[in-house]
Amino acid sequence: MNKEYNTVRTTSNEQSFLPINPFAEPTTTMSSTTNPNHPHIGDDDMIDIDFRNTTNEKLNSGVMNVDLVNTRYDDFQTIDWLKDLMRDRFRHRLLRAKTRQSFLNKILMYHDAWSGWLCVLLVGLSAGVIAGVIDIGTNWISHLKHGICLNAFWLNREQCCWASRNLQYTNVNTEECTEWFTWPQVFGTYKTGAGQFLLSYIMYIFWSTIFASFAVLLVKVFAPYACGSGIPEIKTILGGFIIRGYLGKWTLLIKSIGMMCATSAGLILGKEGPFVHIACCCGNIFSYLFPKYGRNEAKKREILSAAAAAGVSVAFGAPIGGVLFSLEEISYYFPYKTLWRSFFCAMVGALVVRSINPYGNGHDIQFSIDYSVPWASFEMIPFILLGILGGLWGAFFIKTNIWWCRFRKNSRLGQYTILEVVGLALITASIIYLNPYTRMSMSELIKRLVSQCRVEDMIDLCDYPNSQFVTGKSKGSVGLAGPGVHRAIWQLFFALIVQVALVTFTIGVKVPSGLIIPSMSIGAITGRIIGIITEQLAIQNPSFILFRHDCSKEENCVTPALYAIVGACAFLGGVSKMTISLVVIMFELTGGLTYIVPLMAAAMTAKWIGDGFVRGGIYDAHIELNGYPFLDNKEEFNLTTTAEEVMRPRPEQRSALAFLTQSTMTFADVENLLKETTHTLYPVVVTREQPYVVGQVLRRDLQIVLKSQKMHRYRLSSTVIQFTTTSEATLNSDFESDNQPEQQLTANSEVIRVGNLLDQAPIIVTDQTPMETVIDLFRKLGLRQAFVTRNGRLRGIITKKDILRHIQQMSSHNSEATYFDN
Amino acid sequence: MNKEYNTVRTTSNEQSFLPINPFAEPTTTMSSTTNPNHPHIGDDDMIDIDFRNTTNEKLNSGVMNVDLVNTRYDDFQTIDWLKDLMRDRFRHRLLRAKTRQSFLNKILMYHDAWSGWLCVLLVGLSAGVIAGVIDIGTNWISHLKHGICLNAFWLNREQCCWASRNLQYTNVNTEECTEWFTWPQVFGTYKTGAGQFLLSYIMYIFWSTIFASFAVLLVKVFAPYACGSGIPEIKTILGGFIIRGYLGKWTLLIKSIGMMCATSAGLILGKEGPFVHIACCCGNIFSYLFPKYGRNEAKKREILSAAAAAGVSVAFGAPIGGVLFSLEEISYYFPYKTLWRSFFCAMVGALVVRSINPYGNGHDIQFSIDYSVPWASFEMIPFILLGILGGLWGAFFIKTNIWWCRFRKNSRLGQYTILEVVGLALITASIIYLNPYTRMSMSELIKRLVSQCRVEDMIDLCDYPNSQFVTGKSKGSVGLAGPGVHRAIWQLFFALIVQVALVTFTIGVKVPSGLIIPSMSIGAITGRIIGIITEQLAIQNPSFILFRHDCSKEENCVTPALYAIVGACAFLGGVSKMTISLVVIMFELTGGLTYIVPLMAAAMTAKWIGDGFVRGGIYDAHIELNGYPFLDNKEEFNLTTTAEEVMRPRPEQRSALAFLTQSTMTFADVENLLKETTHTLYPVVVTREQPYVVGQVLRRDLQIVLKSQKMHRYRLSSTVIQFTTTSEATLNSDFESDNQPEQQLTANSEVIRVGNLLDQAPIIVTDQTPMETVIDLFRKLGLRQAFVTRNGRLRGIITKKDILRHIQQMSSHNSEATYFDN
Repeated sequence: MNKEYNTVRTTSNEQSFLPINPFAEPTTTMSSTTNPNHPHIGDDDMIDIDFRNTTNEKLNSGVMNVDLVNTRYDDFQTIDWLKDLMRDRFRHRLLRAKTRQSFLNKILMYHDAWSGWLCVLLVGLSAGVIAGVIDIGTNWISHLKHGICLNAFWLNREQCCWASRNLQYTNVNTEECTEWFTWPQVFGTYKTGAGQFLLSYIMYIFWSTIFASFAVLLVKVFAPYACGSGIPEIKTILGGFIIRGYLGKWTLLIKSIGMMCATSAGLILGKEGPFVHIACCCGNIFSYLFPKYGRNEAKKREILSAAAAAGVSVAFGAPIGGVLFSLEEISYYFPYKTLWRSFFCAMVGALVVRSINPYGNGHDIQFSIDYSVPWASFEMIPFILLGILGGLWGAFFIKTNIWWCRFRKNSRLGQYTILEVVGLALITASIIYLNPYTRMSMSELIKRLVSQCRVEDMIDLCDYPNSQFVTGKSKGSVGLAGPGVHRAIWQLFFALIVQVALVTFTIGVKVPSGLIIPSMSIGAITGRIIGIITEQLAIQNPSFILFRHDCSKEENCVTPALYAIVGACAFLGGVSKMTISLVVIMFELTGGLTYIVPLMAAAMTAKWIGDGFVRGGIYDAHIELNGYPFLDNKEEFNLTTTAEEVMRPRPEQRSALAFLTQSTMTFADVENLLKETTHTLYPVVVTREQPYVVGQVLRRDLQIVLKSQKMHRYRLSSTVIQFTTTSEATLNSDFESDNQPEQQLTANSEVIRVGNLLDQAPIIVTDQTPMETVIDLFRKLGLRQAFVTRNGRLRGIITKKDILRHIQQMSSHNSEATYFDN
Repeated sequence: MNKEYNTVRTTSNEQSFLPINPFAEPTTTMSSTTNPNHPHIGDDDMIDIDFRNTTNEKLNSGVMNVDLVNTRYDDFQTIDWLKDLMRDRFRHRLLRAKTRQSFLNKILMYHDAWSGWLCVLLVGLSAGVIAGVIDIGTNWISHLKHGICLNAFWLNREQCCWASRNLQYTNVNTEECTEWFTWPQVFGTYKTGAGQFLLSYIMYIFWSTIFASFAVLLVKVFAPYACGSGIPEIKTILGGFIIRGYLGKWTLLIKSIGMMCATSAGLILGKEGPFVHIACCCGNIFSYLFPKYGRNEAKKREILSAAAAAGVSVAFGAPIGGVLFSLEEISYYFPYKTLWRSFFCAMVGALVVRSINPYGNGHDIQFSIDYSVPWASFEMIPFILLGILGGLWGAFFIKTNIWWCRFRKNSRLGQYTILEVVGLALITASIIYLNPYTRMSMSELIKRLVSQCRVEDMIDLCDYPNSQFVTGKSKGSVGLAGPGVHRAIWQLFFALIVQVALVTFTIGVKVPSGLIIPSMSIGAITGRIIGIITEQLAIQNPSFILFRHDCSKEENCVTPALYAIVGACAFLGGVSKMTISLVVIMFELTGGLTYIVPLMAAAMTAKWIGDGFVRGGIYDAHIELNGYPFLDNKEEFNLTTTAEEVMRPRPEQRSALAFLTQSTMTFADVENLLKETTHTLYPVVVTREQPYVVGQVLRRDLQIVLKSQKMHRYRLSSTVIQFTTTSEATLNSDFESDNQPEQQLTANSEVIRVGNLLDQAPIIVTDQTPMETVIDLFRKLGLRQAFVTRNGRLRGIITKKDILRHIQQMSSHNSEATYFDN
């Protein structure tokens, strides 16, 4: 790429439009963008600093020089969307301008136009493949806890049995599976039932602990960023923050492996949330193939938004839900183009995952439902009850989990992360093995709970001895429950308590862990229990006023399985506070477009109730806990303050405001200023007495100039540094001709003119601007800083950091834990 | 409401925080918001103008004084979101501050918090009821073209037959319907088949013409705004433009009636688009019940966004599609809160419409599909072909329709709108009666085309004599087509040509008309034809490389009905350029979550191909045609200009910049300025020589002050008008103490201090700011104007009008037709 650019540069006119390399530092680019029609022609007594050589040297050193990009923002800095996007438009314009020059450039232009689509295609494909591999891997490792395929250890139970049956065509239909050995069978020592159970139990605990230890060790040693679901961090990154390495290849690899192990260990956590992180890693990695995205943090976030959509899509097979999740929950800057591209990315991911077919049920839909009866109006009452419970659960979970995470952070427990995970795995495995509903994986449990009882179902949950086979398809809802159902309810109830207790302590430990599936599982259990209770009430009191209209002896009227879905939706809604994306995910998961009203009612109630206790979802709570500088773009702030009260320096310490003057500061002055202060950026004003804003200059750019000048020249300290270009000086003097003489500069001192560095388009607000407007400005334009003026005079600067600190002060939080940019 | 406010005012401290009524003019409010802590205490030699009396007098005249709101913006003005939203926050703060004072205020506070939900509930309910009534009405009027229920003329055919069968239990199963008389039966004169046909034909044309005439007359006489789909105008209104009466009760009534008549007349138009307009009318009307929304144009648009979602929801029974349609296509300002509220509104609407049950098929889904075979990979080729055709159709339709509408506008045809509609109805009725596929309503046609052929279907389209009944459920796809299918293809082909030709001339005439259903109908016909062709090719060449893998003699492999859905999606996508909302609407319409990939592929191809010919959808094209000042918030502008090149006055006429000075202008100066210029707003600068921006003042406010002063005092002309408050003057002089003496004002002339009028939070950009950034600022903050400065000095003003004009100039369009605000 760079080669082409340089070729063009040498063939084109030296004084042509757009003299500066588009990949140079943002400010340099900006200054030329803002006055592209004013090429600077060297005067005899003036020296024009041109960056072209400096930057090109750096650029020529390597085409894919990621370091060049990385140096632009330091770790834990916030990005400046406005400038980054301008830089991209400028790059695009340059490319287009050159299109006429050669056929190759035309191809480059097309490549550029399509690179966004190509990139999301690659992201979708890779996310799909990784999700498929993880699903298969998890399945195999999970089965390892119970036994092994002796002939081919790499097969899981189903594959093993299928393979062995293939060999002996005679007994296809028997349940026996000759090649699969459970651990008691492998060791073959205990013949008694109790002994066998004990051995299975011990092996189960043993393997669980091993897997969990492996996961936590991997994370601890290789990629500390791989723990958790990653969604809070990705929200922060998409909000314009730099966390270097968070989306790297190591994180991707370790998170994938760790997730398989952690899930297989039986810990109460899901692998759906982490998929978002994994997909975003893919997005980040592939974006480096396309400099348009890899070298521009703002543009890269477009790819990451699409990747997040693909993450949800591959986790649930829900492309539209994924896009909406990305739009509603994760993304910050979501332009129209991104919406459509995200959809494409999510779609590709879902297609790949389906073609690998990890759900194995032949359906495109994970928890496919097909109920025989529609829902009745009176059922709205239990549905809303489920919504209330979901909201309460959400509030309880967020409070307890944050409390525990804070405790872990501040106490000595934080130093024993490995021990914590191992201990947790031991406890979890010992408990969950004892209950059939917790022993199966949570996905399986959800699938069973949301399935209607059929004639052929002989499990406890479907023990309706007196049911009449009305529809020929379902036996669920007519007839009193048998003893099996009572037993199942008790088991489910204990499963509920176990999951609730364990998940609170599990989410936040140092393994990859998501909370979507656990929340859904807890909700589904609650829902199914309430469903069965409602069903039995309706059967026993068919003439009760509520049931009279819809229920009769001959008809099914309550489907407990539907309650499980509604419960899953409500409980997930209570925790995540998602709204429309939740409902869409739920019906993409279940295929139940008909049940949109119950789902919506439950989600809505859960959110309302939950918001009454805790504002924001679990992800926001974790962002706050970790002190990430995330400026929420959904929250409505209600502040009575003005910019004056937030800007730095505070009025009482006015002298501390660091600024440059346009044409009166000497080399030594500038050098001193840079020494004494550490700001990223300095405002440039007319004079000290007339502090009217002229523009802004980046510290980095100034430093480079000072350094290069020092190398080449002597007696610098008295040289005046002038932040003007020739043309600009003329324009200025023309404009101000009333008051000032034409030549404002005396010739008695040498002058270095660095107009190139000056960005003449700073964002300015007046000091009386309400903070609400200022925050809107920062959120919607993605600013990093704005200058505060009164009657045109510079009074201070507001940065994103100041705003976040102010918001925290207003809500009386401490701001110590926040990583702030400088 | 006002009563309460006033009561509180008199009981509270006179110098308390927030002295000014929240319903006063925006600027007045703003100035007090920006310095709430500086109450103005009258000096002896200074006169403080306080607006409280003036505005309260106006407010006391009526609690629901809509005029007060209306006078705020004139017709065809753009609104200032930023100030309107600030005003609402201020109102909310006032309300909250008073909550502690009494229990009643607490209730008011809760009412305020819930009024948004209450309002959208009412909107959803009313939109649902109106949609239900219109559906039933349309059904009845449509049947009137064919015959009448003699005993009860208010029943349509089905109801009539059902009623008559109820009376005579014996022959329930016969097709005969004794009470329903076709027109030949009514007149009973012609016994021959040809005569009967002729009479039916004439009656059909007669009624069609009558209905169409009625519709156009109603629109012409009572509500000219009721024509068209209304979506371009609603987009413009939601973009922050005022079109008074466009969402009024008359428009609502006439549009509802006109829509029934126009649809029943058989014109090639749909009633789904206009539902959006109708729902928005409901939104506008109900918002006046809640002053929070009715009196604040920016807040009102939140309700309108939700109403638009409800409109799509009631039209298609697609609540989620509706929300996404509102989000993607219509809305401009869509905060997070609105998303959830829109969903609720859409949901309520869909529920109401379903409980009225106008689809009559017992399903919740309008075009319910249930295909027996999944789609095969090779089918992607015809699906993408359909996408290409859809894109081409979209481009063709937009170009032709806009050309025709422009011709109508500029030629004498525009004067004969009634004749045009009557003529069109005559022609349409005469043609469409002759083809069975056009004679049925377009909804019925789509329903038939997207239905799979079943064993019991005896229509032409399902004439597969050699089919084997493989699945027992479907006979569609195995076996060669019989002569019936060939006949059906020809009929469909002619129907296609008729619809394509007619719809181009129909959309844009002066009756309520939507183009969603016509586009879908044309797409469905094309899709079904291509589907049948593919099916026959696959059957005749089962060993061809494409078909070999998926098709065999025993299996269905092509479902032509699926092609109809994909076609409908592609053609609608080509015209409207919708993306994600289109796909969601399609699967909410059909319930076919499994077919999301074909739908997506077709929609995506259609958009890509279409965008190659025409940028933007039909609604954008109509906005441009009508010259509405709509600043597209999706388009990415690629401009190389800066604010300097767009601002007014242009640099060459610099003297024309109209501004006020802070403390040097006399009464006469200000009066002259107001006489000589007509701007809505004036910048206030320090002095003429030092044009540093202090703030801005609304023309209206100035006029009121001048008038009230004139009434009370004499010898005004030499009085100085000072735009400062006491505290501010102190602060200023404190800040500028270096250069200026403490007392800058001599006491030799009287001074009127109107600091109250001054809004000290104007938006300022530098003249070198790239226009892309300026446009972003205007779009994202919803600005009406911004001041352009250089080195702090005011150089000009940019208004939304200037930006739109600039964009149009850049894309070399003429700007004459645009309604601009002043």
